[in-house]
Amino acid sequence: MIDHLHGAAELCNLGFTCSTFHFVSIGLFSIVSESEIQDHLLQDGEVSFGRLLQRTGDTKCLIFCDKVLEASETEKEILPFEGVINLYHKRPVEAAKGARRSPDAVLPSRRQSGSSPGQRADSLVWAEVCNDLIHRVCTLFPDNFVGVCQLPQSPGVPPANCIPELRRCVEELGFVGCNLNPDPSGGYWKDPPLTDPYWYPLYEEMVRLDVPAMVHVSSSCNRNFHGTRAHYLNGDTTAFMQFLHSDLFKHFPTLRFIIPHGSGAVPYHWGRYRGLSLEERQRAMEEHLLKNVFFDTCVYHEPGVRFLTEVVPVENIIFGSEMIGAIRGRDPKTGEYFDDTKKYLDACSHLSDKELHQIFEGNARRVYPRLDALLTQRGC
Amino acid sequence: MIDHLHGAAELCNLGFTCSTFHFVSIGLFSIVSESEIQDHLLQDGEVSFGRLLQRTGDTKCLIFCDKVLEASETEKEILPFEGVINLYHKRPVEAAKGARRSPDAVLPSRRQSGSSPGQRADSLVWAEVCNDLIHRVCTLFPDNFVGVCQLPQSPGVPPANCIPELRRCVEELGFVGCNLNPDPSGGYWKDPPLTDPYWYPLYEEMVRLDVPAMVHVSSSCNRNFHGTRAHYLNGDTTAFMQFLHSDLFKHFPTLRFIIPHGSGAVPYHWGRYRGLSLEERQRAMEEHLLKNVFFDTCVYHEPGVRFLTEVVPVENIIFGSEMIGAIRGRDPKTGEYFDDTKKYLDACSHLSDKELHQIFEGNARRVYPRLDALLTQRGC
Repeated sequence: MIDHLHGAAELCNLGFTCSTFHFVSIGLFSIVSESEIQDHLLQDGEVSFGRLLQRTGDTKCLIFCDKVLEASETEKEILPFEGVINLYHKRPVEAAKGARRSPDAVLPSRRQSGSSPGQRADSLVWAEVCNDLIHRVCTLFPDNFVGVCQLPQSPGVPPANCIPELRRCVEELGFVGCNLNPDPSGGYWKDPPLTDPYWYPLYEEMVRLDVPAMVHVSSSCNRNFHGTRAHYLNGDTTAFMQFLHSDLFKHFPTLRFIIPHGSGAVPYHWGRYRGLSLEERQRAMEEHLLKNVFFDTCVYHEPGVRFLTEVVPVENIIFGSEMIGAIRGRDPKTGEYFDDTKKYLDACSHLSDKELHQIFEGNARRVYPRLDALLTQRGC
Repeated sequence: MIDHLHGAAELCNLGFTCSTFHFVSIGLFSIVSESEIQDHLLQDGEVSFGRLLQRTGDTKCLIFCDKVLEASETEKEILPFEGVINLYHKRPVEAAKGARRSPDAVLPSRRQSGSSPGQRADSLVWAEVCNDLIHRVCTLFPDNFVGVCQLPQSPGVPPANCIPELRRCVEELGFVGCNLNPDPSGGYWKDPPLTDPYWYPLYEEMVRLDVPAMVHVSSSCNRNFHGTRAHYLNGDTTAFMQFLHSDLFKHFPTLRFIIPHGSGAVPYHWGRYRGLSLEERQRAMEEHLLKNVFFDTCVYHEPGVRFLTEVVPVENIIFGSEMIGAIRGRDPKTGEYFDDTKKYLDACSHLSDKELHQIFEGNARRVYPRLDALLTQRGC
């Protein structure tokens, strides 16, 4: 099973876990401030970061604290969660102007993650630090994690800037994909759309390396947009519409993107998009972009996930959940966590075993061929 | 029946039609350029503007050409569509700097409609011209139309600026509601969110007049956002999240908003929003904002409309369709127009007659009390 897991915290990277039980979890590793952790612990009255363990049975921990990072090669057991990562203990970043050093300063630094409003030099150091952290985890637990990288995006800086870090992560660190922020300006959408030739050099490298990108915005600096509840969903809808409104995949027929949160508003407005594709592109979405664009299942209620699987072709759906999710509590109607999307899929009785396997594993292995090769090599 | 109709063209206003058959249509009147009309005629091979007539049986025409505007008081029959409105024949707007005069120039002028990037003076003249046009139509056909007004919004100009025009439209012209653009900057979201005290003076006047607002963005000037297929839906999602994330309705318990396009991404992510309301506001959405926020049914496929009616409380749904819609063609799978949302509702066999009546008429009369009073007075 592949769980396309992504956390609400912005200082995240995408990674994979693969157990000997043929479970695979695609996860965003979250690094959070101590105060945020305390909030979370207090809210739930339990170490809810451990919930993924309950869910998939194999993923041990999402928050990598100092002790995990310092664990020896032989110390393979995940230690109980004990505190906040202070990345700067691992790798000094004196070179990063504006980087802040105290543990609490990790919070503002989130906005430098991926492709947020950091300056070019900060973003590069920040991406390297995060990717090295991911690689450290993958090295400690090679049977559980495979890396997906953060790119050193900054507003106004051409995405070609990201190529060396992408290449390093894939070719040297063994990563199998990347995250791509469609709005490095963090809610002001100042850079060109994803379909502009501005992005093409990065796409050429993605195609050459045969790695997909999850299109995921970072923090919102615009107070009109709540981050996880508006900017995220708007970013998903916007990216899909940009793809639909272009001939991008004529130029890049093997380029692949995953859009999170069930693709924002898209399935709910599937008729609008179907009609547009027919009207404007003179062909169905299946021909125009559904060989290249995939949706995850991070939709926080059973009717929404069922709707997604009824409307969108099964081959375009990749199982996903979130941790730390945008909503952390339990639904009083069901007693279950809102973000436990696997339960919603399990309730989709209209899906055959074959279709569920596609959603849980098959599609992700097709979309991330380097992951598939790795799992095949490992006998998964 | 109340049809909450809104067109894709930006130069629009909201209005009502009331027939003797107890049908009521809430419509956005579209004024388009000649080339756009030609495109539309050529595409369909028919005067598809007349489709509404087929649908509701009473609304005669959506495009008000010169001849309609010049019709005498006794000439009550809608004339066949013959051309584009040239507003400037009706009311010279020499005072409006930047206003363009040739018929083709109507297209750029759209962005001055409602609350787009026009300057303060332009927006005021433009709103007055549009509202006078609506009023002219309402005067010609008093049994069919009731006006809803455009507000003279401009980026960076406090919404208090809109109060005199709102008051004029409601108290002097008999209008029953208004349209409110949450993003006068047209895709750059530079003004404060709708929940900021910046907007309060206008809300106070809306409450005093007891008129609701449809929250609807205008054109997108940001090429990241396709207007009708991304900016619209993002605007809906953003507005809902702003309301949810605030105590606005504690301050204004009788303030009411309608969010179009089935509220963007919101119903699809209903679990996310339910969870957030419980987590952040410590109460259910029903208590927190669903007495104040309503969704229309402008969702272009039957599964989407069915989903909306299954997930969102029936009392929060107001029937709506679009003309000229974002998608103008027919669905090859069904042979029906994508934007014929009434058919989708008719197919919702899980809804009782009472529930359908709520969606088609009852809720709109509750949300627009001045419309209800008018219809009651007319024996509807």
